[in-house]
Parts: sequence; structure tokens; C-alpha cells
Amino acid sequence: MPETFSPTERTRVVREPHRGSFDREAIYKILDEGFVCHVGFTMDGQPYVIPTMFARVGDAIYFHGSAASRMLRGLSGGLAVCVTVTLIDGLVLARSVFNHSMNYRSVVALGKATLVGEAEEKLAALRAFTEKILPGRWDEARQPNEKELKATSILRLALSEVSAKMRTGDVQDDEEDYALPVWAGVLPIRLAASEPIRDGRCDAGLAVPAAVTNFDQRLGAR
Amino acid sequence: MPETFSPTERTRVVREPHRGSFDREAIYKILDEGFVCHVGFTMDGQPYVIPTMFARVGDAIYFHGSAASRMLRGLSGGLAVCVTVTLIDGLVLARSVFNHSMNYRSVVALGKATLVGEAEEKLAALRAFTEKILPGRWDEARQPNEKELKATSILRLALSEVSAKMRTGDVQDDEEDYALPVWAGVLPIRLAASEPIRDGRCDAGLAVPAAVTNFDQRLGAR
Repeated sequence: MPETFSPTERTRVVREPHRGSFDREAIYKILDEGFVCHVGFTMDGQPYVIPTMFARVGDAIYFHGSAASRMLRGLSGGLAVCVTVTLIDGLVLARSVFNHSMNYRSVVALGKATLVGEAEEKLAALRAFTEKILPGRWDEARQPNEKELKATSILRLALSEVSAKMRTGDVQDDEEDYALPVWAGVLPIRLAASEPIRDGRCDAGLAVPAAVTNFDQRLGAR
Repeated sequence: MPETFSPTERTRVVREPHRGSFDREAIYKILDEGFVCHVGFTMDGQPYVIPTMFARVGDAIYFHGSAASRMLRGLSGGLAVCVTVTLIDGLVLARSVFNHSMNYRSVVALGKATLVGEAEEKLAALRAFTEKILPGRWDEARQPNEKELKATSILRLALSEVSAKMRTGDVQDDEEDYALPVWAGVLPIRLAASEPIRDGRCDAGLAVPAAVTNFDQRLGAR
């Protein structure tokens, strides 16, 4: 597979192009770190943006299709969607209001989403959702039965028209502002876990999974 | 103002309606806690979802219009958008894969966005962006000059067709699964800050703003 995706007229990064990237590994990394994607679709001229769980498997994104699946039934060619994943990395506190910003990484993927029909592909997607939430969980928890598989609607978007955009690094102030007596810097922010809350009906003898305890290291390491 | 927004055919919560809310205070609270919104709009039949900074002022959302503003010029009636804000609160680790979930709070706002033209309203929106990033920052940092104000394109969406959706609380497993020897519970997650990184050209004598040091308490308190 080529190391980069090809830009198109629709994914070309117009504003601040130096922040754009089509690098496959960079795009995979952002997708794999995000817990939630925002799915955009249009109905009767109105765009909708719905947050939902997702996972990447190879060169496709799978996402829960609750909101969009009603629209998809009967649409054999698929539904035009945009799937966006955004990670917030820091608040950029400049000397001037105008240069305040955020450090972030985001991926925007365009294309046609289709309903996953085959049980095997559905199962692989569910496995990827579960392993994203908590590595190792697929083997710990009870796996889906046939009824549950049927009740789950999963959509697939092939990654082909896709781009990343990010801001990293320091404050960028106008030269004449550096003399101002204003504290400036970056406040790094990230998703962090606090103490796990054991379910009220969970036997106290059952050990907390290591992946729960190591949540912060896991995110930090990616 | 009424305490709740009125549901419409487009904002009615169809799936798991018990998770929906039209409560004004609940909706405001989610919007005020989020740092980034996802803006959806349609161009040539393709939906786009772009992450951007935003703030609520009264009954309107203001957001940076870099991506959409090109489309808006000349569109006097405004551009159909969906603005979605999502907060992740926890991973819900059930005994069965099927009942894995996330605790989250989200707001979906529909309507027509318009470009903010008046300098005074633009200034109020920029102030709200800045105060959201860091309370007190508007008075600490150099405020925008006329050239910067002109260079900033800000969009406004009145909050009228809007709903919240959230999942809170415990694991919900099927009755027969409670006997399984699988650890179950909720892992709370939230945005947290690490040590601020002073800008390389920032005088070491300038004190770190209290709002930077107190970031975690601030988010926790909201």
C-alpha cells in the first residue's frame, strides 16, 4: 500500500496547508487513538452530525449505524458521509488573544458508507470496537450471540478520500507582542482515567483487568 | 425563557429516547464544558464535518468559520448546519461485549449559520472563545486590533432546534450474564491537564496564571 493517501479537490487542506497530512501511518494513529467519531450525513437538505463509537480495521472505518442505518436501507450505492475524529492535545496560550489556539490532531474521511451485512465482517468490527475500548476485552467478556449480532447495525467506510490536520508545538505570537508582560505557553491536555467503579453486582474477588489499571499509560504510549 | 427547548421532528430522540433531553440548563452545561464543536455542512451533495473552537453566548453558538465561511459569502439566508458537541465521561465495561458502551453527553444543534458582520458582536464572540479556553484570559492577553478582527471570520447559530443525549451510570447487563466471572464496571475518563509548558521566550519572572494551574478543578467543578 502506498505510504500516503492521494489528496483530492475535496480533501486538499486549503487553510494553513502546512498543518495537513496525507501520511497513512499518521492518519491510522489518530484514528486508533480516538474513542468517538462524528458522522456527518445529509437528510432533506439538513446536515446531521452524530457522535458514535468506531474502530479502524485495515483500510476501513467501522461505526455504529444507529442514526444513519434507517436511511441506508434500500440505498444500495451507500450514503455520502463524512467521518471525523478529533483529539485535543493542548491549549495554546499566546500573548495576544488573536494567536490563542489549540493543539489538536484530526482526520476527515469522505465517501459512501454501506451497511455491513455479513456476520463475519460484523463480528470483526465488533471485536475491533471492543478491543479499542479495552485491549483484551474481547476474550474476557461474553461474545455476541446470533440475536445480538442481528440487532447491531454497523456501517463501513473505506478509507480512500482522507486527510489529517493538526497543530503541534509552541505559541506563535507576532514579533512585537513578545515584549508584553503576559505569561505564554502551552497547557497539554489529554483524556485521563480516574479510579474504576466496580459494578454493584460484580464479585469483589474478581480482579480489575490490567488494561483498566493501565489506561493512562496506554493512551500516553500511543 | 422557557426551561426546555421544543422537540421537532428533526431533533426528536428516536433511539433510546430516555437518553434524550431538551432541558435548557443541561444543554448549556454541555456546550459550556466542551472545547471543540463539530460543524456539519453540505457542499455539492457531500457532507463535511469540521472540528473548530466555539463558545455559547446566551442563546447562540459562535464558532470559527474558516472552513464554511467561503461557502457563506453571498448566502444571505445562511447555511444549513449541524453543530455537535460531545463529552466523553467513561467506558462502560459490561460482562457481555454487546452491552459495552460509553458514558457521554452530547448536544446536537440544527439551523442556519450566518456570518457575524458587526465588530461588536465579533468582539463578544472572541471574548467568549478566549474565556472558554482560559477564564480571565481576555483581560490578561492583548486584545484584538482592527486588522485581526477583520481577519477573523465567525459564524453564529441561534439555539432553537437543539437536543441533548447522554448515557450516565452503571453497566446494564442481561440478567443471565450477571453470574459470569467477568469483572464489570465503569472507568471514568475526562480531559485532564499535565504541567504547563512555558514558552521559550516567556520571562521566567511571569507567574503562571491561576486558571492554568487550576485547570483540572475547573473542569471537575463544571
